[in-house]
Formats: sequence, structure tokens, C-alpha cells
Amino acid sequence: MTVVDNQALEQLYSDFTQAGVMALWTQRADLMPDVPRASAVPRIWEWAQLLALAERAGRLVPVGRGGERRAIALANPGLGGAPFATPTLWAAIQYLAPKELAPAHRHSQSAFRFVVEGEGVWTVVDGDPVAMRRGDLLLTPSMSWHEHHNTANEAMVWLDGLDIPLVAALDAGFFELGPGELTDRSTPYRSRSEALWAHPGLVPVARATAVPNSPLVAYRWSHTDEALDSQLDLERSCPDVTLEPGHAGVRFSNPSTGGDALATMRLEMHRLSPGTKTARTQSVGSSVWQVFSGGGAVELSGTTSLLNHGDVVAVPSWCPIAFQTTSGMDIFCFSDAPIYEALGLARTKRSPGS
Amino acid sequence: MTVVDNQALEQLYSDFTQAGVMALWTQRADLMPDVPRASAVPRIWEWAQLLALAERAGRLVPVGRGGERRAIALANPGLGGAPFATPTLWAAIQYLAPKELAPAHRHSQSAFRFVVEGEGVWTVVDGDPVAMRRGDLLLTPSMSWHEHHNTANEAMVWLDGLDIPLVAALDAGFFELGPGELTDRSTPYRSRSEALWAHPGLVPVARATAVPNSPLVAYRWSHTDEALDSQLDLERSCPDVTLEPGHAGVRFSNPSTGGDALATMRLEMHRLSPGTKTARTQSVGSSVWQVFSGGGAVELSGTTSLLNHGDVVAVPSWCPIAFQTTSGMDIFCFSDAPIYEALGLARTKRSPGS
Amino acid sequence: MTVVDNQALEQLYSDFTQAGVMALWTQRADLMPDVPRASAVPRIWEWAQLLALAERAGRLVPVGRGGERRAIALANPGLGGAPFATPTLWAAIQYLAPKELAPAHRHSQSAFRFVVEGEGVWTVVDGDPVAMRRGDLLLTPSMSWHEHHNTANEAMVWLDGLDIPLVAALDAGFFELGPGELTDRSTPYRSRSEALWAHPGLVPVARATAVPNSPLVAYRWSHTDEALDSQLDLERSCPDVTLEPGHAGVRFSNPSTGGDALATMRLEMHRLSPGTKTARTQSVGSSVWQVFSGGGAVELSGTTSLLNHGDVVAVPSWCPIAFQTTSGMDIFCFSDAPIYEALGLARTKRSPGS
Amino acid sequence: MTVVDNQALEQLYSDFTQAGVMALWTQRADLMPDVPRASAVPRIWEWAQLLALAERAGRLVPVGRGGERRAIALANPGLGGAPFATPTLWAAIQYLAPKELAPAHRHSQSAFRFVVEGEGVWTVVDGDPVAMRRGDLLLTPSMSWHEHHNTANEAMVWLDGLDIPLVAALDAGFFELGPGELTDRSTPYRSRSEALWAHPGLVPVARATAVPNSPLVAYRWSHTDEALDSQLDLERSCPDVTLEPGHAGVRFSNPSTGGDALATMRLEMHRLSPGTKTARTQSVGSSVWQVFSGGGAVELSGTTSLLNHGDVVAVPSWCPIAFQTTSGMDIFCFSDAPIYEALGLARTKRSPGS
Repeated sequence: MTVVDNQALEQLYSDFTQAGVMALWTQRADLMPDVPRASAVPRIWEWAQLLALAERAGRLVPVGRGGERRAIALANPGLGGAPFATPTLWAAIQYLAPKELAPAHRHSQSAFRFVVEGEGVWTVVDGDPVAMRRGDLLLTPSMSWHEHHNTANEAMVWLDGLDIPLVAALDAGFFELGPGELTDRSTPYRSRSEALWAHPGLVPVARATAVPNSPLVAYRWSHTDEALDSQLDLERSCPDVTLEPGHAGVRFSNPSTGGDALATMRLEMHRLSPGTKTARTQSVGSSVWQVFSGGGAVELSGTTSLLNHGDVVAVPSWCPIAFQTTSGMDIFCFSDAPIYEALGLARTKRSPGS
Repeated sequence: MTVVDNQALEQLYSDFTQAGVMALWTQRADLMPDVPRASAVPRIWEWAQLLALAERAGRLVPVGRGGERRAIALANPGLGGAPFATPTLWAAIQYLAPKELAPAHRHSQSAFRFVVEGEGVWTVVDGDPVAMRRGDLLLTPSMSWHEHHNTANEAMVWLDGLDIPLVAALDAGFFELGPGELTDRSTPYRSRSEALWAHPGLVPVARATAVPNSPLVAYRWSHTDEALDSQLDLERSCPDVTLEPGHAGVRFSNPSTGGDALATMRLEMHRLSPGTKTARTQSVGSSVWQVFSGGGAVELSGTTSLLNHGDVVAVPSWCPIAFQTTSGMDIFCFSDAPIYEALGLARTKRSPGS
Repeated sequence: MTVVDNQALEQLYSDFTQAGVMALWTQRADLMPDVPRASAVPRIWEWAQLLALAERAGRLVPVGRGGERRAIALANPGLGGAPFATPTLWAAIQYLAPKELAPAHRHSQSAFRFVVEGEGVWTVVDGDPVAMRRGDLLLTPSMSWHEHHNTANEAMVWLDGLDIPLVAALDAGFFELGPGELTDRSTPYRSRSEALWAHPGLVPVARATAVPNSPLVAYRWSHTDEALDSQLDLERSCPDVTLEPGHAGVRFSNPSTGGDALATMRLEMHRLSPGTKTARTQSVGSSVWQVFSGGGAVELSGTTSLLNHGDVVAVPSWCPIAFQTTSGMDIFCFSDAPIYEALGLARTKRSPGS
Repeated sequence: MTVVDNQALEQLYSDFTQAGVMALWTQRADLMPDVPRASAVPRIWEWAQLLALAERAGRLVPVGRGGERRAIALANPGLGGAPFATPTLWAAIQYLAPKELAPAHRHSQSAFRFVVEGEGVWTVVDGDPVAMRRGDLLLTPSMSWHEHHNTANEAMVWLDGLDIPLVAALDAGFFELGPGELTDRSTPYRSRSEALWAHPGLVPVARATAVPNSPLVAYRWSHTDEALDSQLDLERSCPDVTLEPGHAGVRFSNPSTGGDALATMRLEMHRLSPGTKTARTQSVGSSVWQVFSGGGAVELSGTTSLLNHGDVVAVPSWCPIAFQTTSGMDIFCFSDAPIYEALGLARTKRSPGS
């Protein structure tokens, strides 16, 4: 770009600043890159380390009104010190000490819990006590009241996923405190939500209307496990039922619409058979993965790292990612894909594994 | 209506006939009644009698190319000799003799089978062998190939439901014969459709796109039974989960959309607790009900009739209907409700049971 | 089909009749034909004759409560004496004498008026007086109150289109009389519906919610004419904007959804440039066409007939149809296509014009 | 929150930092505020000042490859130096010198131009030359090629609106350069998009499929003006057609769906009659308003400021806003509302004007 009069230009830019305006032409390429140029970086957190820190926090920090939850957020180093795993996703390890309680609140942010190990906690979602056990996925959709209580003599930890960064970026956060005491300490094996909704293909006639977030708030491991196994079994005769050879995947859905369980987050469990190497994919939008069982390796932007039980991976937008495993691996995944699909911004590129 | 010149008028009407036109004003009230004036009538068919006729047909009539299926249709007396249960719905008892086969065909009409008793038949739907057992609902959506084979040493009967009358009224029928021989005689316990789709709230990622008819084509009795029981259990603490006190209902849904399993027919199972009397309802559109277990009575346009296992009831549009039972009753129901909802013609009126 | 014992079979069929059931196997091919086998037939009514009959009716038959409207229905000879143009569509010529009034009623049937010639009548739709002028399309969606008054010293005639046969087949008709006197005799040039909605691409913020039938109830000829002209102009540089070379078409849409103006009927105006011959098409579902201006010929199932101004053509399901014109022709069309699309039964076949 | 051992806690937090994690409990209230706590601030930019700066830029800065456009962005002072009007919306004044050209590019960001004054520029959108004139709204949806050329002997300025900040926050930006030379210098009065789509309620049959962004890319002032006038006229007899007394509003819609013209931005024109004072509203999500004609005042979070022709107002999420005018005022508005509606995060609060 040819500019004639540097002094006049400097004066112009100075007047721009005064007037509260800025030139596009000096920063176009940064504002509108050729391909997504995420400031978030690919990052892995080791479960063993997260667990140790959570246990120390359990001894030192009480759960109480105000701080609300003993949750330790994974902070992506590219995001300038914000406690966000990606620009849209919050991922934290939450620790509840033996017999500990976390009283009710609600917020416009949607949340889920994924239980990588342990049991004994009930989360009460809009008055419905929901047991949390290994492998389960539990939802607390936007504006549902929720409280937790640990009935066990051991601490319990789990992965919390929320859309806190998205809701913050959109200035859409509302938060309300409930009563200071727990409202329900019952410990039913099955939630009311499941009694009503956890029947394959069956919808209660009295509730046969589409709602934006899933009315089913607990997805049990036994179902997920069986669905993944069935997919891999079926793959032998019908190869197109899996995502690619040896790679099964189920999406946790809203049974009233067939769409995503939460309006702002996609939730999936993937299973890689022993010896599987996935294609390398790039997607617009970010995701967080947690190894649930088994282990293997992940390739992120060309760098391969080992993955063990519980390890958490943050994947920025458009970052190439591929998995491989010799012994087999189950990986839970959550992403912001529904946002991009709703706004017409979704794009994916797939190349064969190297 | 005052008419001056009768002779001229007669001549006019005669000229109308010649010209292929007709007056609205002489038949307006018939063409556009104040409320639906169905020509179909309320009608009950006794299962014992249907069964006896089906067995006789089994001895006398072979299943063969052309006739295609040994299905005996319930003919509503109000429909002028057509073999239709209602103006939009076909209901038939189908009989397959021991070891008998019914080779493949497909058609634009959608079909389902509901198994009121027996087992041993597999229906192969688009290459997927689906076992038929007591209480199961099996789908053959529009244009899916299907063939049946009875593996047992006993005959099997079931209820066939189709949208034949609707498709006939709409002149939308296409029909194709498949090969003369059976394509698949395997007898898996579980169909591929179930392996892929019969997991509560879980959608295969590789198939996560909405499709108009359900990709799940078998709904097993154990799930239906448990869903109904759960609803009645839950009713004690959450009264609004049932349709009315003591009246549970589940809808067979398309897990890819949360909507009706078939685009043209609504499929439901209802359970009435002992001592339940339902509200009297009138709906635009027609329905067919079959007692699956237990018994009771149905009130149709003010006339009450007893109902036993397997009995089939045809309910015309806007006909008041109510059920009652002392010992409890499970009733399967199919209706044309999705049509009216799609076209903005749905209307329901509900009054308390007398 | 081999049958062993004819006597026993006769007895069986007789018992079937007694029991109110019928065999599928003796009538399968009729019930489920290979391709749609419409009982309606292709038929053309000449406008000159319709007009003459309407005028005679105008002299002899008063419009009054009960008969309600002086509408003369086109009766398809294949439909057994019913006053229906096709199995789903009603088409009539309505005649309103000078200064004559037709007081208000409403019904679940949806209606429209298409004005092939004349002016001077206002139809009041839900309290909104709508002028009817040559080339205009006016809607009275399901359950909207409507009344007409002729302000002119000459009679006016127009084409009425309704879904009476569909609503009759579905037993979904509700009808209510309004007051015996006209409620509004004002004669504004433009309706309130147009004031609010007839601005291209602009939606009133206060009404920015999708509704099933169009909130715009008047589509003026000047707009339709210009849209068709523009399409043919544009075709020179962008050939894919027309349906085929020389064949422009606009659909009258619901601006709140972009879909069909009425839930049960598709409404379109087609323009053929001089010298155009269309492809031959077959569609599931039926349609009615009226020549608005110019003339030409229509080929229906291989038989070609001349078409003049105002002539009306009924096209049964799956009947091959093609148009041709040497001097150019505008044709209004209404069909039941939205029903088939909603129910997953739509199918079209297109072959080049012969 | 009681904490026992400060030293251990400090060590814990230090280890958190090492491990790339952060505590929720120390920052919960900031992360999850009770109501949206926008960092963007309410801000007004005066048109006269913007214009003067643009003219100086016009003399000093050439438009060229790389910088691409002479656009001066309004930078919200709360957003840390980013050139963003709000966290999701970009607003800029673009200046094109006499006879100047801006060659083609395309990007995943959606854009529109609103012309507050002037004429003579054509913007070519996917090969369709679109004239830009006073009061017009022109779209360049996501990934459409676009180039501009000024045919006049005077410079032209306009308001550019884009979703650059949203797409940046979501890391969803793709950008491509087109040829260095202009592809089309024609200057038709009407674009092809208008020829095909700018007819009220009329959809081209050949394009009768819903698409996510509007196929109509030019909304002319004459239509907008007439729609607003009509709404205010109609308000006398039908008060509910306006947003509130004296306050008309039209939304620029996608005629193929009836929804928002762009998937990520809502576009509206509002007209306040002389003497109108609007209700005070708070909405989740942000907006930008530009006075098109007339003038008045805006109250933002309780502070009232005068508004003149061309002035631009940025409104953060949940900021109370009200307008008033003695002489009447037309205001163009764009917002991110479609995002919140798509994600289930929309919320609005309305209180009467003070």
C-alpha cells in the first residue's frame, strides 16, 4: 500500500484514536485471516496431576456460598490467563469431599458432568436426584437448578463441561443462588428423568413436544458401552455404521428432537478398537477430549503425545487432530459444533491418517 | 332459498350436468358440515372371531405372488364396501402358516406390524432380519423392501397397519415386486436397526442426520412395558407425567427427529391402571385401537361395549371415545394424527369421563 | 394362486362378509397399484360455457343463507358424481350479481379466489376488506371469516379454489355462520394485509413470527406480471432462473415462512413465452390450471386440446401433462403438492416435450 | 469462605499456575455474573466527525490489495483496543473516492452496507452488480464474492456492518482474494437478485428451496419507507401492528424462509413518529443503531444524548435503551439477536419510558 504523506497519516491515525475509530487496512489480515488462526493452543492435561491438585484443594478449600464449587478449570495457555479450555468451552475437574454438599444455584450457562471414575454423588437437577457413577454423563441445561451431595466416605471427582466462555463472550450470563441448605438428600438408583425418557425410541405422550435442551439428563455408561460395542460388531457386515474402520461414535441426543442434548455443546463418546488409527481432521470450532479408558496417542498439529486414562486434550479451531491406539481407547468428547451449524459457519476437512 | 322459475331452474341443472358442473348451493351443508360428519362408523371386531377366520384362511388360501400376503382387512361398514378400517387407515390380521414364506415387495404405503401374540416370524426390512415377538412393534416405512418367513412349527398372526386408504385417496401408490425367493433366512435375536439405534438418547455419529421415517424399525415389548410401568410409578410424585390419573402412554418415535416414527401414522401404547376411567375425547382424524392385554370397556358415541384381549376398535373422526377398566388394560393405538398436524387441521375436545 | 376347495373358500368369503372383514389377496393389485391409477380423469372445461351457465344461475338463483354462495363446481367425471375437480381440490366459478352481497361464514377448509376477469367486488377477510381485480389472487385461510359484496353495476365472476374434497376425505370440516348482515362495506384500494405485508423482503417487527397460513392475503396482478416478465428477461443471462427455456413461474408464498401460502394448496402463476413447448411431467398429486391470458394447447396423457382464455384443466395424479403455445400464454395453477411433501409421498417424473 | 492454611493455599495456587489450571471459587462471581456485565460500553459516534475522518483518509490512503477496503471501524472503548463496536459486531464507515475501485474478495464473515447518503457505487455480489443508493440495504452473505466500483465524480461513504468480532471469537474466519481487476463494471438500475426476488410474497418456482442467507441482496429505500409509512397509517385502526404507539419497525428478511436476512445478524429499520418516546428495553446481546433521518435523543443506561443524522450508537448487552424524538426519526439497527435465539440464550426486559 503506497502512502504519500507520512506525517499527515500519523496525524490521521492519532485523530482516529481520539475519535474512537480504527483503520481496517492496517490490520485486515489479522482481523480476517485466510484460515482460522486460533489464539488457543493444543494442550494436554495429565489426569494424575489434576487429581493430585484436586485432592490438595479438597483439604484446603471448603465448598461454600460465593465460590460455589470446588472446580479447577483447565486454562488454555493461548487465552491470556482466562480459565478457559478453548474460546467457547470450560472444562474443570470438580472435587467433592466425603459427605460434602454443594447447595443449589442456577445459571444461563449450560453444564454437564462426565464421570471418569468413582461414584456416590447425587446431583439434584430441577428437583430430580440423579446418581453419578463411572462413565455416566449428566446434564444441567441452561437455567436448571442444581445441587450436589456426596453420600460416600470417599471423595469423588469428575469432569465439568460448561459454555462459560461462550456465554461470557456473548454477555449472556444470568446467575441465581438457591437456598443455602440442600433441598433433597434422597439417593434413588434411577432419576425421574430416566424413568420418563430412557427408553429407546419411546416418548411419553404427555410430553410429546420438542424442547430445546434434553429432557433426559442422565446417560448411563451401560447404554453407551453397549451402543459402541454394537456399532463395532455391526461394522463387520455394514461398514458405514462407524465413522471409519474401527472407530465407533455415539452422540448424546435430545430425545424430543433427535438433535444435540444441549443447544450450545455437542457431547459424544468415541471408541477406537485396538490397532486403530483415525483420519486426520480439521474442524472449525473447538473441542475437549478426555480419555475414559484404555490409552493411545493423539497427534495435534503434527505433534504426537501419549494419552492415558483421564487425560484431557483441548483442540483449537482448525487444528489437525488424529488418534491412534494399539490396545484400544474410549474417549469422551465435547465441542461447540452446534453453534457453528446454527450460524452457517461449520466446515470440516478430512485427510487420511499418516 | 327463494327460487322463482322452477322450470328454468330444472333446465339449468340439466345443463349443469351436461357441462360437467354442479351447484354448491344445493349441497353446501353436506359438503361443508358444521362438525365432521364421518361416514365411517365406530366398530369393534372380536379377536376370537378374527383369529378363527384367519386360521381357516390359512388352510384354504396359499400366500403367493400377486395376492402377496394372507391379510384379512377390517372393513368399516360405513365405507361402502371398501376394506378400510377408517378413511385413512388399513388394519388387517395377517396369518403366516408354519414354515411359510412371503417374498419381498415394496410400496409407497407405510406399514407396521403389531404382535398381539405368538412369535417365530422374521420380517426382513431392507435387508435387515427383524424378529417378531409378542408385544413388539415393527416398521416397514414407505418404499422399504420387506419379506417375511415363519421359522416356527406354529402359525403366527399379527396386526398389520398401513396407510393404504390415505395413499389410495391421494393416488400416491407405487408398488414393486422383489425376487420370487426369500433373500435372507437368518434369524438373529436382534436386528441391525436395533444394534444401531435402540439405545436411549444415543444417536450413531455416522448417521446423525434427521430422516423422515424412523431408522429404528423394532420397538421391543420389554422397553414399552417398562416405560409404561415407570410412568405410572412416577405419577405418584409427578402427576403430570401421565395423560390423566392412571393413564400412561408412550409414543413410538423416530429417534432422528423425536417426531412420529412414520410420517403418516402415529403409533402409541396406552396402559390403564386397574380402576381407571379416562376422559371422553373427540379428535379430528381417525384411529384404530387393539387391546393388548387385560380388558375393560370402551364408550363410543355414548354406547359402551366390552373389550377383551385382541379386540380391535375403529374410531371415526370426531367420535367421542372413553375407556374404562376394573382390572387394568394395555391398548395399542394407531392414528392418522400426523397428517392433520402437518396440514393445520388438528383439533381435539376433551370432556371429563361420565 | 392355487386354491384347493372352492366351496370352503366361498363359505369363508361369505363368513368374511358377515364378520365385516375382507381378503387382501383378491384385490391387492387394485388396492396397491404399481403406479398411481387415478379414478379422476383429465378434463377441460371451457370458460365461455362456464360463464354462460353462471350468468343463467345469476338470474335464477339468489345467494342466501344456507346455500351461502352462488358457486358452480367443476365435477370430474371420474369421481362418481362428486362436485370435485380432483380427489383433493375443489374448483368453482363463483358469480356475484351487481350490488349483491354474500354474508360472512368461516370454515376449516382453506379457500382462495383467482380473478380471471372483472372487478368491483370486495371480500372481507377477518375484518379486512380486500378488493378483487383482474389477475389478483386473494386468500381466505382456514377458519378466517369472509364475506363478499359487489359494489359494481355489473356482475363479477371468479375462480374459487378450496380443499373441500381433501377436508371431506379427512372428515375435518368445521363450519360456522356469521351475522346475517354484512359487517363491512368499505372499499379501500388496498387491504390492511397488504399495507402490512406487501413489501418485498420486509417483515413487520411486531409480527415477526412464523404462522402456518400466509398473513398476506392479496397478491396483485401488477406484482405477479412484473415478476414473470423479470424472470424471462433475466433468463437471457441466467438460464437457470426459469423452469425451462421460455417458461417462467412464480409461487405465491407465505412471507412469514417462505413456504406455500396455504398449508394444503400450492398456488402458482406460469408464463410461457411465444413459441414455448414445455417438458412433459408427471407428478404424484393433482392440479387445476386456468388460462389467464393468451392461449395454446395442453397435452394430457397423450391427447392434445386447445386452450383459450379462462379454460380450466383438471390434471389427475401421475397424468403426463405438457403445454405449448405459439402466441404466449399465462396459466394460473393450484395443486395439492404441499400435502405430498409434508407426508413424504412426493414424486415427479420429467421427460422432454415430444 | 474459611481457609485454614494460607501458606499451603498459596503453594497450591502456585502449583495450579504451573499445571495450567485455575480455581473457579476465587473468580466465580466474575465468570458467572448475576446479570450480563458487558465490558463493552454504550457509545455514540457523531456522523460529522466520522465523515471528516473518512474524507481525510480518502486523500491519504489508497484502497489496495492487502488492506482491501478504506473502512474505518468504530472501536468500543470497553473492548481493550479492538476495532469492534460490540463483542460480536463490526461497524465501519467505508469511503470510496470518485471512480475508485475495490477488487473482489470473499470471506466467511457476513456483511451488509447501509447507505446513509450518496449514490453512484455498484457492489458486485457473486457476479450480480447492485446499485447502492441512499436508504438502501445491500447484503454480501458469508462466502459471496464482492467488489465495489464508484462510477461517480464524488466520493461515496456508507456504513459497513459485519460479524467480524463474532467470527474472530469463534475462530471461524476464512478469506480469499479474487482477481486483481474488477470483474464487472456494468451499472444496471436493478440487480438480478431483485429481478428475481423483490416481488412481495412471490417466490421463483425454479428457486423454491429454503437457503440460510437471503437470496435477495438489495432492499430499496422506497420499499422500506413505504412499509414504515403504511404501518403508522394502519396503526390508527389496528394498534398492534406497530411495536408501540408511534413506533413502526420492519425487519429485512430472507424471503426463502421468512427469517433473518443473514444467519448471524438481525437487520431492521425503525421509524418514530414526531413526539414518540419508546419504552426502555434491555436485551441480551448487543446492537448498533444509525440515525438515517430526522433526529432525537437516546437514553443509554440512564444517560440521555442527542442524536443527529448519521450518528451511530453502540448498545452493549443488557444495557437499558430508549429513544425519543419531537420531530420524528428513522433509525437503522443491526444486532446479533439471531445468535441468541438459535442458542436458547435470548432474553428481553421491557419497562415503560420514564
